[in-house]
Order: sequence, then structure tokens, then C-alpha cells
Amino acid sequence: MAIRVTVWNEYLHEVEKESIAAIYPKGIHTAIADGIRNYGEFETRTATLAEPEHGLTDEVLENTDVLIWWGHKGHARVEDAIVDRVHQRVLAGMGLIVLHSGHFSKIFKKLMGTTCNLKWREQGDKERIWVVDPAHPIAEGIGAYFELEHEEMYGERFDIPAPDELVFISWFTGGEVFRSGCTYHRGRGKIFYFRPGHETYPTYHNDNVLRVIANATRWAGQPQGALPVFGKTAALEPIPGK
Amino acid sequence: MAIRVTVWNEYLHEVEKESIAAIYPKGIHTAIADGIRNYGEFETRTATLAEPEHGLTDEVLENTDVLIWWGHKGHARVEDAIVDRVHQRVLAGMGLIVLHSGHFSKIFKKLMGTTCNLKWREQGDKERIWVVDPAHPIAEGIGAYFELEHEEMYGERFDIPAPDELVFISWFTGGEVFRSGCTYHRGRGKIFYFRPGHETYPTYHNDNVLRVIANATRWAGQPQGALPVFGKTAALEPIPGK
Amino acid sequence: MAIRVTVWNEYLHEVEKESIAAIYPKGIHTAIADGIRNYGEFETRTATLAEPEHGLTDEVLENTDVLIWWGHKGHARVEDAIVDRVHQRVLAGMGLIVLHSGHFSKIFKKLMGTTCNLKWREQGDKERIWVVDPAHPIAEGIGAYFELEHEEMYGERFDIPAPDELVFISWFTGGEVFRSGCTYHRGRGKIFYFRPGHETYPTYHNDNVLRVIANATRWAGQPQGALPVFGKTAALEPIPGK
Amino acid sequence: MAIRVTVWNEYLHEVEKESIAAIYPKGIHTAIADGIRNYGEFETRTATLAEPEHGLTDEVLENTDVLIWWGHKGHARVEDAIVDRVHQRVLAGMGLIVLHSGHFSKIFKKLMGTTCNLKWREQGDKERIWVVDPAHPIAEGIGAYFELEHEEMYGERFDIPAPDELVFISWFTGGEVFRSGCTYHRGRGKIFYFRPGHETYPTYHNDNVLRVIANATRWAGQPQGALPVFGKTAALEPIPGK
Repeated sequence: MAIRVTVWNEYLHEVEKESIAAIYPKGIHTAIADGIRNYGEFETRTATLAEPEHGLTDEVLENTDVLIWWGHKGHARVEDAIVDRVHQRVLAGMGLIVLHSGHFSKIFKKLMGTTCNLKWREQGDKERIWVVDPAHPIAEGIGAYFELEHEEMYGERFDIPAPDELVFISWFTGGEVFRSGCTYHRGRGKIFYFRPGHETYPTYHNDNVLRVIANATRWAGQPQGALPVFGKTAALEPIPGK
Repeated sequence: MAIRVTVWNEYLHEVEKESIAAIYPKGIHTAIADGIRNYGEFETRTATLAEPEHGLTDEVLENTDVLIWWGHKGHARVEDAIVDRVHQRVLAGMGLIVLHSGHFSKIFKKLMGTTCNLKWREQGDKERIWVVDPAHPIAEGIGAYFELEHEEMYGERFDIPAPDELVFISWFTGGEVFRSGCTYHRGRGKIFYFRPGHETYPTYHNDNVLRVIANATRWAGQPQGALPVFGKTAALEPIPGK
Repeated sequence: MAIRVTVWNEYLHEVEKESIAAIYPKGIHTAIADGIRNYGEFETRTATLAEPEHGLTDEVLENTDVLIWWGHKGHARVEDAIVDRVHQRVLAGMGLIVLHSGHFSKIFKKLMGTTCNLKWREQGDKERIWVVDPAHPIAEGIGAYFELEHEEMYGERFDIPAPDELVFISWFTGGEVFRSGCTYHRGRGKIFYFRPGHETYPTYHNDNVLRVIANATRWAGQPQGALPVFGKTAALEPIPGK
Repeated sequence: MAIRVTVWNEYLHEVEKESIAAIYPKGIHTAIADGIRNYGEFETRTATLAEPEHGLTDEVLENTDVLIWWGHKGHARVEDAIVDRVHQRVLAGMGLIVLHSGHFSKIFKKLMGTTCNLKWREQGDKERIWVVDPAHPIAEGIGAYFELEHEEMYGERFDIPAPDELVFISWFTGGEVFRSGCTYHRGRGKIFYFRPGHETYPTYHNDNVLRVIANATRWAGQPQGALPVFGKTAALEPIPGK
């Protein structure tokens, strides 16, 4: 059965700036939704900030196995109630893939519990993304590394919890490194943070980038255990004197 | 140099209920602050919910290396502004030890990013706390396990991120298990969650419990790296064409 | 494409003791190979100690995606050359599922780097296996826990490296706990240790046990990254002065 | 009480090659043993390959809290019986710090269970070592990063188990990255792998390098839990019907 994917994008840069529209004429969300279908069987839809409830109604989320998130300048405009809804849905089992500047989204910060801050520079660094966990399914089809000729630099210290699994580390021309591919389990949900994707570069047309996102979608969309039940509970074994 | 410890307690049960006051006449906070001094050189103070700013002023937090937290029925009465202040201070490097029902405190949930929910039962289960990481300094001076004759049961599934290090697992008479001693790094701060300590039992008079809290205080009060600097940054190496 | 599974069993107890043969007339290996097919599409074969090269020829291993291992009294009779061959094959990408007394097998100890020692007791304890990571695909189809009416007890301290992911923790009647479901990445291979399965109990006829082994086989048989290349390497970027 | 440190060095390059003797006239072991005393109270001794039992008698190991290991061309000449002795002592609680080319030592490979292979190049790359876990005591006194003007390059994929804690990541001029500071618990012992230290560079005269080794020694020399007891064990709670 195909994994049901919703690609969310604030969809602001592409509308406001011609040079970015030239790279992503239908928006970053459409580029990703179309692009990953070359690397797996996915049933994709998209959602954006401007839609009612940001396109993330209860009905949409209930029918989403994996949510992909791209945001940047519009983080503050995402309503807290929707963030809470996504948060609950992730803990209940929906996969979440957070891309690039999504590191500062409300949903990622809420799930991580830290500032998710980092160092950055827009100067056209080359990025070389190294696989450090070749056993990981997210690294499928990638060689020892792949390169992005120009990207925004993100550098350590990246203020996140130590990832459950570290899949990629980036090298940048200007001298920095970055933990670029990080997995987390939170509640019943699986989360993957993937670094690349500045809006001024054609990163989401890159084959390796799309393949990683597709791999991560498959990983995050895997089955899982039962939804936990919490609260007061009766003893399963006799308690002496009771 | 002695580690500067602030023991925070909502201090409600001990005031409101005679049977609990009989166990902790000066409050849980005082029992802990006094008790851990048998197991290390600590400079302790206490703070409670009823004090202005809950006793957690900027000045107090700036002079606290490790904050110990006990709360239960008063979680909702802790002001968000104080929670944010403690959160920032932990990320900036203060250690935090969260005890028992503190699993549901605002500060712990904010740092974990999950519900921190669990199963529970007040029926006098015996708790046997097993050391699963004997290399850990928090396990110093404890044998293979120790027992608490009667405790509230907390059972899995405990909705927390997988701990960076799992030090203790509890066995309960009624048939449950629990990850009872969990460490985390968050930002520049170190966090330890320790399960035991229901207010109706003399748990904080138990030698092993006090020793674990003292060990954890030492662990969380260790030195650390530099406070990270975030934001826009210049290249450290030449970027061709720039 | 079906995952190609080889179930290895020393196949000694079932031959030597009638009461065990009564439980596993065709051996533990056959019970597992047959049983997991109810929970997934697997192409299974079996191999045993008495076969030439213990049934683990280069050809067999090259055509095995996941190897399942059950051993106990015959550990020392497994030839080192075969252990080395399996070790290399795991690091090169074959999945490995180690069951019960396989904790003391040469291959598991070699991969873990520790003694893999533990506490044990054959006294018919009830075992209750709790899911502590409901996001994990290995927990699919299992409730909050499942029970085995009688099993050999294994208790902490279990001398293994902290697992990459801890999926299950066991509770035992006699008062012990155990990390019962542990995942590891080693090289390009994925490893799962699963506790239950003493030869005197019908554990490998239990639906939940078989389902976990099937889930773990799927998890360990997932795709992975490229086989790493090691050794001397040329610079990818200019080194000033060279 | 001062931590008792034994610095082990194969001590071959410094004897055989004048240019290396010029950097380390009394050997790498002496440079380290002398150097770390500027950063803590340590009781140091040294041991080398040529000594009887490589200087690692039972008596020496029994009186060593932390063993520091530098080896390269002499790995194969280290006797297996001594490796086994060190292995047992680590599992029993001795700290171990493995430096640079020690990644290929018998003891490190035995403890890791993997090949510990990597990419390398001797071409005078600059190495910039970034702190990725500022909460860690091993990062004390180091800024956001530090630089070594020239070092041998070690690049990923580094075939090790995912570290329990990742403290440092290195950037190299030639385009590679490396997990340079890795902690592990094995048995009752704490292990730290630290990358820098090629024999042709004055790395062990660098203040930051010495400080990291001193910090790691303190970390690895911390107290720990009780030595586990393994094997057959009586039930701690009644087992019905027994």
C-alpha cells in the first residue's frame, strides 16, 4: 500500500521573488511531491500556509502517514493550535520529515525541546554530505557521499538533542561541519531532519536529495507498535496484602 | 568547589495532609537538601511554589549549578515565565534533576518534547531498582539493585525520548517495568530523571535514593564546553569566487 | 522481493532429549522457519552445526539477507573460521537476529566486544515482555506487552553495549528485569537480539514471539547504504601548498 | 585522590626516525604523561611495547584507573594474552583512551567488534575540530572549535559502532569529515576515542589536544557502579508452584 504523504510548504519565497519562482515555478512543495515519486510508490498531496488551517485539517492529518515540512520566513505565522495538532499526530504515529530552515519551525522546536539554533552563511559554499551510517535504510542508493555545488551553510553547534541515529554529516567549503541527517523516535512517530534545501538553489531538483527524502519517507512510514494507553492501571500480578 | 544546588518543591502535600507532614515535617525539599549532604559536598538551598517567582529568581538560577525538582498537584500553578527561565538556564548549562511526579512538570515536558505520560497505581507495590549501566557514575555505591518496600508504581510505556543513557530499570510487584534512571544532554545542560519518591512513602529518607540523587547532582554539575554562539558567521576558509 | 532468511540452529537438544524433541520435532530451526512465514513473505532455509561448514558456506551466506541464530551447548563447537565469515558478512550488510542463549555465541560476543554475560534461572518464571519503543517497526502487531507463561529467566546486568534502540524490557516473576529486544548497527549490517526461547518451552510456537522475529527479519533485511571503501584516498579539494 | 594513569606507546617511530625523535625526544608517551599534568591532578606512569609484558603486567593494570593507548606500526606485535588482559580490565572498570592510529589496535577492535577501518591521507590537511556536545565534560575549556594546522586526514566512513556520545567532529581541508571524539561504556569501563596525533606532527604538544586528553582521563576515571555478578541466581520473589 502506498505511503500517504503530505508535503507542507509555507510557499512564500516562491510567490514573492521571481528568481526563486524561476527555480520552483509550482513551489518547493510541488517539486518535492513530484520528485520523490521517482524513488518510490507514494500517494502525495500538498498543503500551504495560506490555506484554511494551513491545509492541515484533522481530516488531512488523519490521512497522512508522513508529513514533510518546509518553512522559513513564515514560522511565526503558523498557528499554535495547528502546531499542537501536528505534535499530537506525530506522537500518535505520523512520520515527520523536517527540511532545512524547518529547523526553526514551531513544530520541530516543540518536538526537540531545545532552541534548534545553529550557525549559518549564505555565500555559496559547496556542501559534501557524507554517509556515516551505511546500515541505515535512509542511505540507500547514495554513494559514500554526494555534493551540492552551492548551498547555504549550516554549521555546528546545532542545538538539538543527540539524534537517535546520525546518518549524514556535511562538510562545507568555509570550514564548518553539520549533523545533516538525524533520526528521532518521539511517541509513536518517527522524525527525520534533513539539512539541504535553501530556496535560492535548485536543491530539490537534485537526484540524491530527492532519493534521501524518498528513503526517509519510507523509513518514517513504516509500521509501528500499538498506540500506548496511559493512566491508572490495575495490577497484573497479586500484590501481597492487597 | 562545592556544587551549588537548589532543591525545588511545590510543598503542598506536606502542608495539607498530616500523614505526609509526619513523613516530611520540613517538606520533601528539606529532606533532600539535608539528605544528600551525607554523600557529597554540596551547597544547598531550597525554593517552593509559594515564594515570589516560586523562589526561582534570575539571581537564584544564576547561582545554581544543579536544580532538583519535585512537583505533583501544583504543576499547573507554575508560571510559564518561570518555566521559560528555567528552560533557558538548563540549555545554558544548569543541571536539572527531575524526581518522580515531576515527569508531568511543565519544565520536563518542555525539555522532552513529548507527553511524558505513563501508567501508575498507588497500591504499595514493592519496587526493585536494577542497575543496567554499571559504568555510570550515577550508579556509584549502589549494589546490583536496591529495593523500596512500598512505592507508587510507574509503568511503561513512559512517553519520553529514548534516554541518552539508561542507568536504572525498575521491577514492580504488580507486573510492570519502568525506565527509572534516564540521562539527557539538552543544550549545555545535563538532565537526570529519577523515578522514586511518592509523597506518602519515606522514600527520600532511603540511603540508596539519597545516594543516587547525590551522584546525579555531581554528574549534572560537572564542567562542560563553552556556551555556543549561534547565527550568521563568516567563513573560516576561502570560498572560491567570493 | 522476498527476504532470504537462513535459520541456523545447533540442533543438539532436540536430538538428544525426548522431551525437547516432543516440543520441536523438526528442531527449533524448522519451527522458526515455518512459523515466521505466517507473518511475512520470506524465502527460508535452515542450517545446523552438524552440516559441513555448519551449513554456512560462502554460497549460503552470499544468498542470505538475514541470518537467525539459535545456539546453546554447542557454542564452542562452532569453528572460528565460520564465525569470522559470518562476522564479515554482517559487517558487509547481512542482517543477524540472535535468539535467547545465542547471547553467548561466538558471533554475538565478537560483534558486541563484551562478555554478553547475564543472570539466569530455570524455574518456570512467567515473563512479561513490555514494549518501550512503540515507534519501532519490530513492535508491530504486539500490544502494550505480551506474556510467556513459563520461561527461563535472564536478568540484568546483561553485559552488552547500550543498544542503539531498546524495544522490549522483560519482567520476571522472581523479581528481575531484562533488556529483551535490542537493536544494533554494526558496519553495514543490522543486528537484533531477542531474549525468549529456552528449549524446554514451546516459545517458538507462540504467535507474538514469531511475529517479533518476523518483524525483526523485515527490519534487518531493509536496504542500506553503499558498501564503504576504506584506505588511502586522494583529496577532493585542493590542499594549499600541495 | 589523583587518578592513576598509564600512558602506553609502542615507541617505535620515535626510536627509528630522527625527524620524529626531534618532535618527541622522550617519546609520545612521555609527552602525553607530562602534558596532561598541566590540566589536572594525575599520577602518571608509562609503558611501552618493548618492556616485558609490554609493561602491562597484572600489577600495573590493577593500579591503573585510566589507560591511554598510542600504537601504529606495532599493532600486530602486541601479544594476544596482553590484549585479553587489558580487555578484561576495561570491562572490570578501567578507563581506556585510544588515540589516533590506535583505532587499528587489537584492543580497540576487540572492544568495538567492528573493523575500525577508515579513509586516510598524509598530505598536511588542516584539521578543525568542532564541539558538537557542549554539555560534555570532555569539551571543558575548549571553545567552539580548535585547529591543528597540519594533521594526517582520517575520513568517514569510520567503521565503529555509533558512539554512546559524539563529542567532536573534524573538518579537513581536503573535503572530509570524521567523528573525532567518541565515548563508549563497555562493561564497567569507559572508553574515549580521540582522533588527532600523527607521529610526524607536534600534536601532543598542542594545548587543546592535551586538555581534551586530560578531560577525557577525568571522565573515564570517574567512579562507577558495583562490579556485576553473573550466572545462576535464586529468585528474589516467590514463584508460584515452586
